Amino acid sequence: MLLTILYIIGITAEGMSGALAAGRHKMDLFGVIFIAIVSAIGGGSIRDVLFGHYPLTWVENPYYIIIICFGAILTTRIPSIMGRLEALFLFLDALGLVLFSIIGAEIARNMGYGFVLIVISAVITGVFGGVLRDIFCNRIPLVFQKELYAGVAMLVASLYYVLIEYLGIESYIATFIALVCGVILRLLAIYYKMGLPVFNYEDKQKNKD
Amino acid sequence: MLLTILYIIGITAEGMSGALAAGRHKMDLFGVIFIAIVSAIGGGSIRDVLFGHYPLTWVENPYYIIIICFGAILTTRIPSIMGRLEALFLFLDALGLVLFSIIGAEIARNMGYGFVLIVISAVITGVFGGVLRDIFCNRIPLVFQKELYAGVAMLVASLYYVLIEYLGIESYIATFIALVCGVILRLLAIYYKMGLPVFNYEDKQKNKD
Amino acid sequence: MLLTILYIIGITAEGMSGALAAGRHKMDLFGVIFIAIVSAIGGGSIRDVLFGHYPLTWVENPYYIIIICFGAILTTRIPSIMGRLEALFLFLDALGLVLFSIIGAEIARNMGYGFVLIVISAVITGVFGGVLRDIFCNRIPLVFQKELYAGVAMLVASLYYVLIEYLGIESYIATFIALVCGVILRLLAIYYKMGLPVFNYEDKQKNKD
Repeated sequence: MLLTILYIIGITAEGMSGALAAGRHKMDLFGVIFIAIVSAIGGGSIRDVLFGHYPLTWVENPYYIIIICFGAILTTRIPSIMGRLEALFLFLDALGLVLFSIIGAEIARNMGYGFVLIVISAVITGVFGGVLRDIFCNRIPLVFQKELYAGVAMLVASLYYVLIEYLGIESYIATFIALVCGVILRLLAIYYKMGLPVFNYEDKQKNKD
Repeated sequence: MLLTILYIIGITAEGMSGALAAGRHKMDLFGVIFIAIVSAIGGGSIRDVLFGHYPLTWVENPYYIIIICFGAILTTRIPSIMGRLEALFLFLDALGLVLFSIIGAEIARNMGYGFVLIVISAVITGVFGGVLRDIFCNRIPLVFQKELYAGVAMLVASLYYVLIEYLGIESYIATFIALVCGVILRLLAIYYKMGLPVFNYEDKQKNKD
Repeated sequence: MLLTILYIIGITAEGMSGALAAGRHKMDLFGVIFIAIVSAIGGGSIRDVLFGHYPLTWVENPYYIIIICFGAILTTRIPSIMGRLEALFLFLDALGLVLFSIIGAEIARNMGYGFVLIVISAVITGVFGGVLRDIFCNRIPLVFQKELYAGVAMLVASLYYVLIEYLGIESYIATFIALVCGVILRLLAIYYKMGLPVFNYEDKQKNKD
C-alpha cells in the first residue's frame, strides 16, 4: 500500500521532470505528455518486454498514465513554480530512481532470476526512463555522463539481494532499508558530485565521426 | 478486404515518405529500405510488443515487407516525380495516420482493453512509425513539434470508441466514419496550420544541455 | 561447441568496439558498459522481442553479460593497445557480423519462418547492435551510410538458406561455408570500399529540417 503510494509519487515526479525536459526542447503538448510518460514508465516497460513479463504495469493499471498526463499538463501551466522547487524534485527524482530499482530487483527475483539479472533488471527499471527521455530529446543520455546514477541502482539492487538472500530479512523490511540507504547515497552523490570515472578515448577516427 | 487494400496503400505511402527522409540524410540503399520499413510498420510493431500481441503483422504477412521495399527502391529511382506529388503524399500520409490509428484502436478493443488503452494503442500505431523514423535520422521527432498529428490519432480513436460502445454502430461503419472524419480533420489541420500549444521552458539548465 | 566459442569471441569483440565508441563520446564507466552490452547483444535482443522468442539469450545465460562487462572494462584500461589492434578488430567485427547473421537466420528457420523472415532475422541480429550503439551515441547509424554491411548479412543469410533448403547440406556445414564466405566478402568490402548506392535527396524541405 505504502509502496503503491510511493510508486505513484515516483512516476508523477519523473513525469514532471520529463515534461520540463520536453519544454526545454520546445515540444508541443503531445510531445510533453509523451516524454513525461516515457520518462515515468519507459524503464519498467523495457524491462517487462525484455523479460517477457506481460501484461505491462500500465496496461494493467491504465490510470497510471492518466496521473502522469495530469502531472505533465500541470507542469506546462506552472513552469516557474517547478523551477523554484528544484530541491524537492532532486529528492523526488532520487526517490523514483531508488524505488524503481528496488521494484525491478523484486520483479526479477520473483521471476526466479539470479543476482546478475536482478541487478540488470534494477538498472533498466531505474535508469531507462531517463535514457529514453534523452534519446527522444535527441541528446546523449545524461546518465552515461553524469554523477553516480546507474551505480546507485546497482548498489541498491545488490543491497536488497544480500539482505533477503543472505541475511534472510523479510522482503518489505529489505525494501525499506534499501530505499532509505539508496536515497541517502544518491543525495550524497549529487552533493559531492561523485561520479564514475569517465573514459575519454580520442583517436584519428574522431575526425570521421 | 477494402481495409487490406487501404492498409497496403497506407504502408506503401508511409514507406515512400520514409525513403525520402532517408534520402535527405544521404543514406545508402540499406538505410533507405530500413527507414521505409520502420516508418511503415514501426508503430504497429511497438504496439504489438508492448501489448504482447504476437505474432506481429509483418511476421504473419512478410510480403508487406516486400511491398515496402519495392516502394522504397522505386522512390530512389524517381525522386523528382515524388517531389511533384507532394499534395498526393500529404493526402496518403493523412490516410495512413488515420487508418493506422483506427487499426490500433480496433486491436486494443479486440484485446478487451478500455478507453485509455484504446487511445494509447491508436496513437502508438498511428504516430510511432514517424517517431522511429526521426530517431533513426537523428532528429527530434517532428510529431512532437508540429501541427495536430497525434491529436488526430486521439480524436479518431475516441470517435471510433464512442460510435461503437455508446451508439452501438457496427464496427465497419464506425471504421468508415472515423476514417473520413479523421482524414478531413488532418487535412484541415495542415491547411490551417493548427497545432497543439508549444511548451517552451527555458531555465539556467538550458546552458548545460 | 565451436559455435559457442566463436559466439563469445564475437560478443566480446563487438562489446570492446562499443566501449571504444563510448569512449569517443566521453561517457562514464556505466555508459561504456551499457554501450558495450547493447553493441554485443542488442541485435539478438531486438530479434527475440520482435519474434516473441523468449527467453532472450542473455537472460538464459547471464554470464555473457559478465564477459562483455569485463571486455569493456579492459578496453578502458588499455585503449592505446586497442588502437594498435585495429586490423584484428576489423577482422573480429567481420566475424561477429557474419556469425550473428547466421545465428539469426538459424533461429528464424527453427521457428519455421520462410526466406523473407530468415533474411530479416539475419540482418536484425547482425546489424542492430551497431545501430543501437549509434543511436545511444546520438549519431546517424553508420551502417546506413557505410560500405556493404547489412548487404553482407543478407547475402550470408541467403547463402545459408540456399545451402540447406535447396542443396540439402547439413546445418553445421552450411554454417561453416556461410561463415567463411561472409567474412571474406566483408573484408573485401572494407578493402575495396564497396558500398550500396547512396540516395541523396535534397529538396526545399531540407531547409525546414
